[in-house]
Amino acid sequence: MITATTDLQTLGRNARKASRSLARLPGRVKDEALRNVADGLRSRSDEILEANAKDTDAGRRDGLSDSILDRLLLNPERLAALAEDVLAVAALPDPLGESFDVRQLPNGLRVGKRRVPLGVVGAIYENRPNVTVDISVLCLKSGNAVILRGGREAINSNTALAGLVQNGIAEAGVPGDAVQFVESTDRALVGEMLKMKDHIDLVIPRGGSDLVRRVAAEATMPAITGGIGVCHAYIDRTADVDKAVAIAHDAKVSRPSVCNALDTVLVHSAIAPAFLPKLAEEWGRSGVEIRCDRRALSILGSVDRRALTPVSDDDWGTEFLSLTAAVRVVDSLDEALEHISTYGSGHTDLIVTEDYSAANRFLDEVDSGVVMVNVSTRFNDGGQLGLGAEVAISTNKMHARGPMGLKELTSYKWTVQGNGQIRT
Amino acid sequence: MITATTDLQTLGRNARKASRSLARLPGRVKDEALRNVADGLRSRSDEILEANAKDTDAGRRDGLSDSILDRLLLNPERLAALAEDVLAVAALPDPLGESFDVRQLPNGLRVGKRRVPLGVVGAIYENRPNVTVDISVLCLKSGNAVILRGGREAINSNTALAGLVQNGIAEAGVPGDAVQFVESTDRALVGEMLKMKDHIDLVIPRGGSDLVRRVAAEATMPAITGGIGVCHAYIDRTADVDKAVAIAHDAKVSRPSVCNALDTVLVHSAIAPAFLPKLAEEWGRSGVEIRCDRRALSILGSVDRRALTPVSDDDWGTEFLSLTAAVRVVDSLDEALEHISTYGSGHTDLIVTEDYSAANRFLDEVDSGVVMVNVSTRFNDGGQLGLGAEVAISTNKMHARGPMGLKELTSYKWTVQGNGQIRT
Repeated sequence: MITATTDLQTLGRNARKASRSLARLPGRVKDEALRNVADGLRSRSDEILEANAKDTDAGRRDGLSDSILDRLLLNPERLAALAEDVLAVAALPDPLGESFDVRQLPNGLRVGKRRVPLGVVGAIYENRPNVTVDISVLCLKSGNAVILRGGREAINSNTALAGLVQNGIAEAGVPGDAVQFVESTDRALVGEMLKMKDHIDLVIPRGGSDLVRRVAAEATMPAITGGIGVCHAYIDRTADVDKAVAIAHDAKVSRPSVCNALDTVLVHSAIAPAFLPKLAEEWGRSGVEIRCDRRALSILGSVDRRALTPVSDDDWGTEFLSLTAAVRVVDSLDEALEHISTYGSGHTDLIVTEDYSAANRFLDEVDSGVVMVNVSTRFNDGGQLGLGAEVAISTNKMHARGPMGLKELTSYKWTVQGNGQIRT
Repeated sequence: MITATTDLQTLGRNARKASRSLARLPGRVKDEALRNVADGLRSRSDEILEANAKDTDAGRRDGLSDSILDRLLLNPERLAALAEDVLAVAALPDPLGESFDVRQLPNGLRVGKRRVPLGVVGAIYENRPNVTVDISVLCLKSGNAVILRGGREAINSNTALAGLVQNGIAEAGVPGDAVQFVESTDRALVGEMLKMKDHIDLVIPRGGSDLVRRVAAEATMPAITGGIGVCHAYIDRTADVDKAVAIAHDAKVSRPSVCNALDTVLVHSAIAPAFLPKLAEEWGRSGVEIRCDRRALSILGSVDRRALTPVSDDDWGTEFLSLTAAVRVVDSLDEALEHISTYGSGHTDLIVTEDYSAANRFLDEVDSGVVMVNVSTRFNDGGQLGLGAEVAISTNKMHARGPMGLKELTSYKWTVQGNGQIRT
């Protein structure tokens, strides 16, 4: 039980020590540890769900929003998916030790790079208890020690999950301090963690914009910022309307509380009359509130207007995290590109089109972490994109951008091997 | 002529604007610009050397140290080498647009990454005027705009070189604001630059530890820190003595004022009696002051002791930047590894050995940006390691480590292309 600053320092020193042995732990030991964690998630699911129920009950009593309650919630399906993700990470190749950019120079030097862990990762997160598992397993597989600090709302779930992870890795013979969990929910400890640059090499905030901004401002070590997804879909004049409706519906409705959910639809004026009524019908059935610009309102004037409201300027650039979306009619791809450049957060932006050149211009010109054609924004996710799981979705350009998996938790060292070469 | 904060803001905005067009500039235009710069370095060398003479004369009057004067100095050979480096960068492939990690997922999604520029780079440097050219050409080739802020001591050289670069790129049709130079040497402007996170995506300090520490502490944008090289050579018991002497001599003497020069020799006790007297003889001829531990002193007691002094604890972990070195006799590879882990700066560390296992253990276990076997530490240099030139040698683990060339000045975006995939 970590309650005070001195404890946090001890925990940091222990993490540093553990990171040294982790860096050279054989891949099979790490994978066995991960399989133990997946087994635990299955065999101890009742216990986890019980702890989670305490959190969700308390959250309901405290009047947490539906979107927070959804992020907080674990259920048998989500636990099973979590266990699947852990096994998927175990099945991935060990990222460490890989040599790359290897070559022999004209003077005979053999030069290359070798992938190595970062060291100690600090994770500061809020409502989603699955983060406890996702980040632990990715850090472990990539040879990094991790210090976990989850949100107050999920303390029971996180404590149970962290215990399960720690058991799983200990059974495989991984140093116990590889995964450490700050059990105290004292907010002052976050500030302390952000000062511990000698013990933490990278801090990853996972949560709302307040947390991300605080970490960016206060962290004394490198920080990944991201996770704020103001996601756009541009429905081009050549879009297949049914495909566009299905994609926009999935992107908005399948899990509105997460960062890759759709926020703003930009639709070309030539296709808006065909597209918008169908979209409004689909969204209407799911209770989506649509904030429309003047032209969209006028097109939708003839259909059910109960869920329509005029858009306000603040809605552009808003991450709704709920069943709300903004809609704007534009007259060209250029207008859409300009809108995205002005209001986007560089997280996920999508074009729906059948026009080859429009697709390519969108891919070339939109400067976001993930740029998509004809696919739901909800695929911007480490698991969905083949990383097994993710520690974060970065909107930084330095180090890693977009979903961060194993490779993004590593650094490299150069190796230079010669036979007596000198420069003079 | 940039003299005030408002000017600096304007310059930042212009750099941002230039970066947008730079990102899509064809490679051949950029390469033509670089060849123009190389031509300028050759055809206008008198003018550059004249400006440089003003700086070195002023530096001598102001009593600058020999090591600073050496870093400040341009001569025909150095200018010719600089032009060669520029041509080498021009000859490298364009790093932009490269797709990597491309694959098709089982659900048919085509996923990949595309290399893109960072945006705007800020360079803050001290005495070495070649940095003006090195950083400009690497930024240009990698599609980044750059804001250059060189040291007061080199202001004449830098102004001349920046003008030459700006002419060269303008002739090729590159936007003029791609390379901007802060002509004022007002130190307050450094603080202003470090606040401009909206206009500068990455700041690179090139200079002494005071500058690097200041940038690390004050920068509001990501900063590469590094360039502080406390470089070790461990001479293993199985080393070839002549090779070891030649390497240690080159590493210390060929250019003592730079970060990849050797600082500390750790020598195995079994080979110290054969190695140290030969090294002391070579170093003695070049005027190297040797700071010895007790055992090294006793071995060298029988040879010329004029350049020998007892080492002090502060010498371990010191970057001498001069003809000074520390020497310690150790009894094992482990003792050397422990010393490097304690006193190293993670920049460049070397083993000289004929023992296969010792070489591999050193490569595996030393956690530095560049780890070497049987080669002079002076090869830790972007030009020498095949990058054409370098913007910095990073001792960070995030983003880039070791010498940073073109690729290290880029980010990437994910592209996800589908045909209507949704998650539900």
